[in-house]
Amino acid sequence: MSRLLATLLSSFVIMILAAGHLSAADPTAEKARTLRHVVLFKFKDTSTEADVARIVAAFRGLPAKIKEIAAFEWGTDVSPEGKSQGLTHCFLVTFRSEADRDAYLPHPAHRDFVAIVGPHVDKVCVVDFWSHD
Amino acid sequence: MSRLLATLLSSFVIMILAAGHLSAADPTAEKARTLRHVVLFKFKDTSTEADVARIVAAFRGLPAKIKEIAAFEWGTDVSPEGKSQGLTHCFLVTFRSEADRDAYLPHPAHRDFVAIVGPHVDKVCVVDFWSHD
Repeated sequence: MSRLLATLLSSFVIMILAAGHLSAADPTAEKARTLRHVVLFKFKDTSTEADVARIVAAFRGLPAKIKEIAAFEWGTDVSPEGKSQGLTHCFLVTFRSEADRDAYLPHPAHRDFVAIVGPHVDKVCVVDFWSHD
Repeated sequence: MSRLLATLLSSFVIMILAAGHLSAADPTAEKARTLRHVVLFKFKDTSTEADVARIVAAFRGLPAKIKEIAAFEWGTDVSPEGKSQGLTHCFLVTFRSEADRDAYLPHPAHRDFVAIVGPHVDKVCVVDFWSHD
């Protein structure tokens, strides 16, 4: 029985180590399939705080409506470097493939968002990149 | 002995479930402490491919030299939207705190990098943001 116990415990330890190894390896594998879609906005001086809040809420609503979005995050500029070119809001949308990004762009929910944000955009910058280390 | 075995196995199962729960909870906790530093470059027309490769290599070398960098990734623009404003290279540097970002900016290794990239920059955009869902 103690041999069985030892075998079982060893198996568990191996499983735990293997799980640790896999989870350590996963990010690299994931990264290889990570297409980042970076969207930066400067809103018009005439756009109110309520307008901007509505735009942010609308963008934040997209992951629930567009299944191709693998990850989503956003925030407002806090850089002390003064090189933001006036862009104040950054949205980082992650896809697993260009096909997913290509499904997102003309998606009705995305088009609805573009219609909401459009009138308030003073400046926009969009860069997509495949994530490398 | 079989009771000991059962107890030990139960403990392992509980540990595994707890670990799963923690790792599921971690991303949110991590995200709350995730400060993204987004750097976009357009290089000069006079900068050669070799210049750009040297710059990318120098930037990629920073995580090994600056311990405050929590994560690093980069890539070149593949957006079909035509809104990149000429910016071709995106670097996403992640910090855990503004203190870490503030240690990075004047770090000698970062200053060396700035000296390398400076002469080749036609346009730069830097936005830092605390990551929100």
